[in-house]
Amino acid sequence: MNPNFDEIGKEFVKQYYSAFDNIGTRPNVVSFYNAETSLMTFEGKQLQGAQAIMEKFSSLGFKTITRIITAVDPQPMFDGGIVISVIGRLQCDEDPPHAFSQVFVLKPLNTSFVLQHDIFRLGIHDTA
Amino acid sequence: MNPNFDEIGKEFVKQYYSAFDNIGTRPNVVSFYNAETSLMTFEGKQLQGAQAIMEKFSSLGFKTITRIITAVDPQPMFDGGIVISVIGRLQCDEDPPHAFSQVFVLKPLNTSFVLQHDIFRLGIHDTA
Repeated sequence: MNPNFDEIGKEFVKQYYSAFDNIGTRPNVVSFYNAETSLMTFEGKQLQGAQAIMEKFSSLGFKTITRIITAVDPQPMFDGGIVISVIGRLQCDEDPPHAFSQVFVLKPLNTSFVLQHDIFRLGIHDTA
Repeated sequence: MNPNFDEIGKEFVKQYYSAFDNIGTRPNVVSFYNAETSLMTFEGKQLQGAQAIMEKFSSLGFKTITRIITAVDPQPMFDGGIVISVIGRLQCDEDPPHAFSQVFVLKPLNTSFVLQHDIFRLGIHDTA
């Protein structure tokens, strides 16, 4: 297992959202995904491969995301990968803020990682 | 990849919470974890192995959990495993309800699965 899983996981989350949260740099997140094998579940919709994932992101329309991270929990995997749970709140442009949950699974690839699994959900409410 | 990942993932979540949510059957969740290798991150605290995980659960004190599941998103993994993201709300005994997020990674073992990774977080708020 990678002894630096916590540091790597938290740094990945920081870099990913830093790119994702502005429309100008959002296309750069393509570099985290594998062209063929990366899997994403976006609000229940299943997507495979960097191109399908980026098309989904392009369709979202908002320009800027203001994001507050509540918790980032990385956990080491036995193949050298890292599973990361993120919860927080985000606000798209002038919309009301929403809670979100995102799960990333990083797989080791040469001296770096590829984003193998990505599961995103908006809108966890604390009251009925 | 397991073609039945969605059905297996959702059935696992149902069985796990069915056992966990009542103090009388909560000890039965031990059967999902591996004695040595299962990893759990509970509210940021890292635990390894079924015994450490069960001791944590035993220390929690509440009797009954009333749980509302908002979304269960299973995704197939390339080793035949399944990564599952769950979000919802839960109420412990007479406490106020809280949002929660839980991530499970199931690894294939013989004809079944072992719960290899488990990450739990309470309290995702939709408003500041």
